[in-house]
Amino acid sequence: MSELLGKKERLKEILKRLHSGENVEELKKEARELLASIPPVEIPLIEQELMQEGVSVEEIAKMCDLHVELFREAVMKKMEVIEEGHPLHTLYKENEEITKDAEKLTLYAKALDIGKIKELARQLRHIGFTHYDREETLIFPYLERRGITAVPSTLWRKHDEVRIKLRQLLQFIEKGLKERAKEKAMEVSNLLIDMVFRENNILYPALRALLSDGEWAAIKQQEGEFGFYKVKPKEWKSDAKPVHPYEIDGGITEEQMKKLPSELMAAITKSDKSGLERKGDIKLDTGYMLPEEINEIFKNMPFGITFIDSEDRVRFFSGHRIFRRTASVLGRPVQLCHPPKSVHIVEKILKAFKDGSKSKADFWIKMGDRFIYILYIPIRDKRGNYLGTLEIEQDITELRKLEGEKRILDWK
Amino acid sequence: MSELLGKKERLKEILKRLHSGENVEELKKEARELLASIPPVEIPLIEQELMQEGVSVEEIAKMCDLHVELFREAVMKKMEVIEEGHPLHTLYKENEEITKDAEKLTLYAKALDIGKIKELARQLRHIGFTHYDREETLIFPYLERRGITAVPSTLWRKHDEVRIKLRQLLQFIEKGLKERAKEKAMEVSNLLIDMVFRENNILYPALRALLSDGEWAAIKQQEGEFGFYKVKPKEWKSDAKPVHPYEIDGGITEEQMKKLPSELMAAITKSDKSGLERKGDIKLDTGYMLPEEINEIFKNMPFGITFIDSEDRVRFFSGHRIFRRTASVLGRPVQLCHPPKSVHIVEKILKAFKDGSKSKADFWIKMGDRFIYILYIPIRDKRGNYLGTLEIEQDITELRKLEGEKRILDWK
Repeated sequence: MSELLGKKERLKEILKRLHSGENVEELKKEARELLASIPPVEIPLIEQELMQEGVSVEEIAKMCDLHVELFREAVMKKMEVIEEGHPLHTLYKENEEITKDAEKLTLYAKALDIGKIKELARQLRHIGFTHYDREETLIFPYLERRGITAVPSTLWRKHDEVRIKLRQLLQFIEKGLKERAKEKAMEVSNLLIDMVFRENNILYPALRALLSDGEWAAIKQQEGEFGFYKVKPKEWKSDAKPVHPYEIDGGITEEQMKKLPSELMAAITKSDKSGLERKGDIKLDTGYMLPEEINEIFKNMPFGITFIDSEDRVRFFSGHRIFRRTASVLGRPVQLCHPPKSVHIVEKILKAFKDGSKSKADFWIKMGDRFIYILYIPIRDKRGNYLGTLEIEQDITELRKLEGEKRILDWK
Repeated sequence: MSELLGKKERLKEILKRLHSGENVEELKKEARELLASIPPVEIPLIEQELMQEGVSVEEIAKMCDLHVELFREAVMKKMEVIEEGHPLHTLYKENEEITKDAEKLTLYAKALDIGKIKELARQLRHIGFTHYDREETLIFPYLERRGITAVPSTLWRKHDEVRIKLRQLLQFIEKGLKERAKEKAMEVSNLLIDMVFRENNILYPALRALLSDGEWAAIKQQEGEFGFYKVKPKEWKSDAKPVHPYEIDGGITEEQMKKLPSELMAAITKSDKSGLERKGDIKLDTGYMLPEEINEIFKNMPFGITFIDSEDRVRFFSGHRIFRRTASVLGRPVQLCHPPKSVHIVEKILKAFKDGSKSKADFWIKMGDRFIYILYIPIRDKRGNYLGTLEIEQDITELRKLEGEKRILDWK
């Protein structure tokens, strides 16, 4: 016990030096030996004591950072080197941040520092939109294609538990239920740590064993859409062509199988070898559709659209129309489709769309008890060249009447 | 004058018999000789006198019907026989109805019978949506393709004059401005008669000379979309394949040229020989578009869409998205795209769309200060087979705030 006391004193010393602005890197060196010599179960006790002795929670929280620095070394030692900026590197780095914050959350909970808990819980919610969402959306599909669906599904359920508990935590705080908030904060902290453990020990090694450079390149391309949890990943470029989930054939080689964490191997089912492109499919920037599908989609959309091409001729109309369109309009110069007295308005809009000076013209009118919104937008190609103008007409009467929220399917 | 008096007495007699329910056909025979012997300029005088003698306006109005019956005989005699139900036959018949009503309008105006004027003016507004709209939308394109654009444009301007004056007339009535209403009613009446004259003597003979059976078949196919002015056209079927304006090459033969009314011949410009279908065009039910156009239209639409195919895989997403979509979702079974705990909702919706028991599921939520509407609709082929499900997400925050109307382009 006296030995532990001595270690506690030395920890306090280190925390003071952290407070005075000393570099984490240097202190880490010093602290490594110290922290390594303290059994993990003792650490919360030391934290507790430091708190009782009046060391501020903020100070103690810094210890978490040190902790995780050490933790990372252990993780990294286990792994071969991954380049900075590589999506997997980023995932590991986020897990460090999550670990730090989870430890801090426990600390604040013990100290019942509701202000700090609230601040941190709000930050932690971003894990859901960034780290978890990236895994669920960008990464799991690569496993699913290979017949690995049970583990992603379990992780997703756990992610949702974190999301829900964080929401509950903030609600308890809002309602002033301090003790319940404390309990919930501890739960969240444990769950977060548990997730880090599962990811670092099962998910990430599996990804490392299975995903090709092309797959990582595709992930890298898209990950910015989601953002990151307290990490700014460096640039990372692969020479490999990006490979999307639907482009892989889904097999797992024997070589890969050997490297898979045992937790995963039990749950592998039939791989998904379906190709995305079908015979007759039209290739679009973000998917493939058959002409028949495109046709019926346009027809069934709850708006009417009309497309005028770059030569001002009506090329296409469809959807739930408010203003009549008949086949007789196809190929007709749009200037001839309007009352002669309003042609100058048509010309004015087309001119501004063509020269790029405007990108929208909208109108709204009442027709009986219906409220109609009419929108004109220019359509340009990837280089910005004018392809035509789209008219969209929408009856927004009912949309304007909606109240509150409807998040639940109310079918009987 | 005494002769005219005698005729007036005989007209009164005929009107009485009309009142007692005698058949128009029989009376027509009798009245033909009588009316034919009265110079057209005298008719308004006789009407005036009958009114002063206390014959009701309704009674006198019936004379208009007789008048037009005779008028039609004259028109029909000039024309070769057109089958009933043929779109041109319908146009002529509507013009009879318009003539009758225009005469009645004059009569009511003279009698300053505001109630009757109002009732009739409201009916006459339908000419704009039916007879005129059909000409402007279905019929003019066939002339435009042949280089005849000036005459349709003039007629359209006149149509708009009628539309505007009818609106003004109803406004005067609304405001109790009887004398101005009377004047306006007379103007409308004259304009209507003038239009009938132009159509019967210029437009319709031109159509007769130029349009093929296939063109009339296409018109017949679509005319029901617009409806008719006080006429219910009979069935009429042509053996010819319907020909849309964009399918004709726009030429006028010498033979046809000879039959054209001279008023038209002066204004013929270069015919429009442009084809509708371009190289690479995708044929859709109501037009043609290049894959690039389709691609950019989907991308620029102010809604996010996601299409799931009949095998529940995500095939396509695009547009102004609120919820993130990345290429990693393509080909992914939709059941795997959702939090595992809500998969049963996805399955429920898909099942109901597939078995046809539901055709819509919608939700609305608030995201910060944004109001988001999310709609799911099944997409089916022409035989009703399930092709997939479309998700549409739309930020309707601004649409919900729109006030009043905006009918005018407000660009500076």
